[in-house]
This record gives sequence, C-alpha cells and structure tokens, in this order.
Amino acid sequence: MPQFMDVHHGMKGITADQLREAHNADLALEKDEQVHFERAWADPESGTVYCLSAAPSAEAVQRVHERAGHKADEVHPVPLSI
Amino acid sequence: MPQFMDVHHGMKGITADQLREAHNADLALEKDEQVHFERAWADPESGTVYCLSAAPSAEAVQRVHERAGHKADEVHPVPLSI
Repeated sequence: MPQFMDVHHGMKGITADQLREAHNADLALEKDEQVHFERAWADPESGTVYCLSAAPSAEAVQRVHERAGHKADEVHPVPLSI
Repeated sequence: MPQFMDVHHGMKGITADQLREAHNADLALEKDEQVHFERAWADPESGTVYCLSAAPSAEAVQRVHERAGHKADEVHPVPLSI
C-alpha cells in the first residue's frame, strides 16, 4: 500500500492528549477508506503535525482527516523511504 | 534524546538511489554531532523530503545536513509522537 505524509499547520500549543485524541479519531474512521495511520509527530511550538499513513490514495487520507474534524493542509505521497 | 523532523524542498525528481546516497552521507557524519537520522521519506513529484532524527538540538541536525551538502529548509522539534 502506498505511503503518505500529511502536514497540519496552525496546531500551536497542541498537547500529548490532544495529539492522541486526534489520532484515535482517525483510527476509528480509517477502515472505511482502507487507510492506516501509522505514526504522528507534533511540534507544539510552530503548531505543525506530521502524520504517516498507508493508504490507497491521498484523497482517502484526506477524507478520513476531514471526517475526524482536522483536514490536512498538505498530503504528499512518499513512494521513497528509508 | 529529543526527536526532530526536518524538511527539504526543491528535490523534484529525487530517485531512490539519491535518497539513499544523501541519507548515507548524513550517517557518515552524524556521530560528530551526536545525531542519529532514523528515517527519511521522499515525494519526488513535489520535491519534498522529510527526515526524522534523534539529536541534542535542531542546530546539530542542521550542521550534519549542511556538512553533507543538503541544508534543510525547516527543522522542527517534535517532542510529541505516536
């Protein structure tokens, strides 16, 4: 399954609990779109969140995020990884 | 050790070999700065590369990337992760 890195801006001050809650909201919806959110990293200072997923398409990733209430600002396919 | 996500733009058309070569250049230098580059993901279409590292500071991450010949455009501490 292709991998995607998506980026959320404007999340200044996000806490560990809020990141976990947002990730859990994605996990609860992801199966409908055959997406799996694998990892997430947050920088509360700049308000940036990165999510790594395996998904059939960038649109599927975005649909899960939108339904969970936190649309991504960017969704990038990352076909190359180490 | 704190974790960092850094981002490189302008890498359009990057190949798997080039990503591996760039990552190996980082690995060859990272010990001088007590940095470890753990993962890297690339989107050849938009020319974006993400690197995940463990490091004493964002400046240490950037010094390794600069010495390896590929300065990052952004280096974000990511104290929160899942």
